[in-house]
Amino acid sequence: MAAAMGLERKAKVAEVALRCAVCALAALAAALVGTGSQTRTFFSLEKKARFTDMKALVLLVAAHGAAAVYSLLQLARCAAAAAFVSRNGGGNGGAAVVAWSVFLCDQAVAYALMAATAAALQSSVVGKRGQPELQWMPVCGLYDAFCRRVGEGLAAAVAAGLAAVLLAAVSAFNLFRLYGGGGGRKSSAGAVSGNGANTW
Amino acid sequence: MAAAMGLERKAKVAEVALRCAVCALAALAAALVGTGSQTRTFFSLEKKARFTDMKALVLLVAAHGAAAVYSLLQLARCAAAAAFVSRNGGGNGGAAVVAWSVFLCDQAVAYALMAATAAALQSSVVGKRGQPELQWMPVCGLYDAFCRRVGEGLAAAVAAGLAAVLLAAVSAFNLFRLYGGGGGRKSSAGAVSGNGANTW
Repeated sequence: MAAAMGLERKAKVAEVALRCAVCALAALAAALVGTGSQTRTFFSLEKKARFTDMKALVLLVAAHGAAAVYSLLQLARCAAAAAFVSRNGGGNGGAAVVAWSVFLCDQAVAYALMAATAAALQSSVVGKRGQPELQWMPVCGLYDAFCRRVGEGLAAAVAAGLAAVLLAAVSAFNLFRLYGGGGGRKSSAGAVSGNGANTW
Repeated sequence: MAAAMGLERKAKVAEVALRCAVCALAALAAALVGTGSQTRTFFSLEKKARFTDMKALVLLVAAHGAAAVYSLLQLARCAAAAAFVSRNGGGNGGAAVVAWSVFLCDQAVAYALMAATAAALQSSVVGKRGQPELQWMPVCGLYDAFCRRVGEGLAAAVAAGLAAVLLAAVSAFNLFRLYGGGGGRKSSAGAVSGNGANTW
């Protein structure tokens, strides 16, 4: 049981660290992309590039902003649960319901961040290189500062997505651990024995 | 233990069914998008639309083709493991190593399919509606049959992605179940008791 408790503790530390990372990186990505703009004057015509010019960037800002807020709420829940445990000495009221809802939300956030990032990356590559077969011209030659800003935002978005993926794995661990067959036990080397016929 | 065995059996059935679904849907998506083409003649100039004109569709075909092959290999592994178990009456040789590698591969496939599908959807929306702020014109007015074909392929790609997401959850279940703290037990209502202080 001591090994299991150590593993549980590690999972909690990893969860809090990853939630902080997702929150900070997603907020950074949304802020970098959302606040960037560049104005250029062509003859007497003034044109301004903003993230709203590209649907994929709007999606990115929305998804990462929502993920940052969600991570903050989850951190508050973690803190509240820790305070509850330290005062009441543990207790398992609704552990499965909480673990299931956290698991589902974390999965949804991870896939949403990955999808939004992939769509924005795709749009940005077309914006940078164009798609000559379809006569879509590159636009980064005109708005170089804006494009650089979006590039930095995308780097933060990718990092946030990776942290969200790791977090989804941790919350899957927290949930499915509860369904251990009763015979599973973890040796210190990380190998698992027991649980008869589960070799596929 | 009987409840746990029933759960295990259900997870195996779900795994095989989802692998079949991913294999069929991903192959369908890759085939629909990869084989579609449309030739139009503008005055004396002949132009042909193919999926290679759009980088995101190339990525979609590659990702879904690879996922279909991977699913086939995994189905073969499932069949081999089932044959082994029925002959040797179970055994847990390397259960954790297998579960870990299957888990990591399934997660990678799920995220890759979702990302490729999101990128292709994004490109297709721009192809359908254009992005007037950047002077990218819609191209589906010219190649309507090709666009319809790509749309069908994308629908299959989304379905394959959803199946892959469910499959990733099942293989996370198969892996992390092995790390059950020893006290977790599942009641018939799906609620979980035990495992003292794990309420966050």
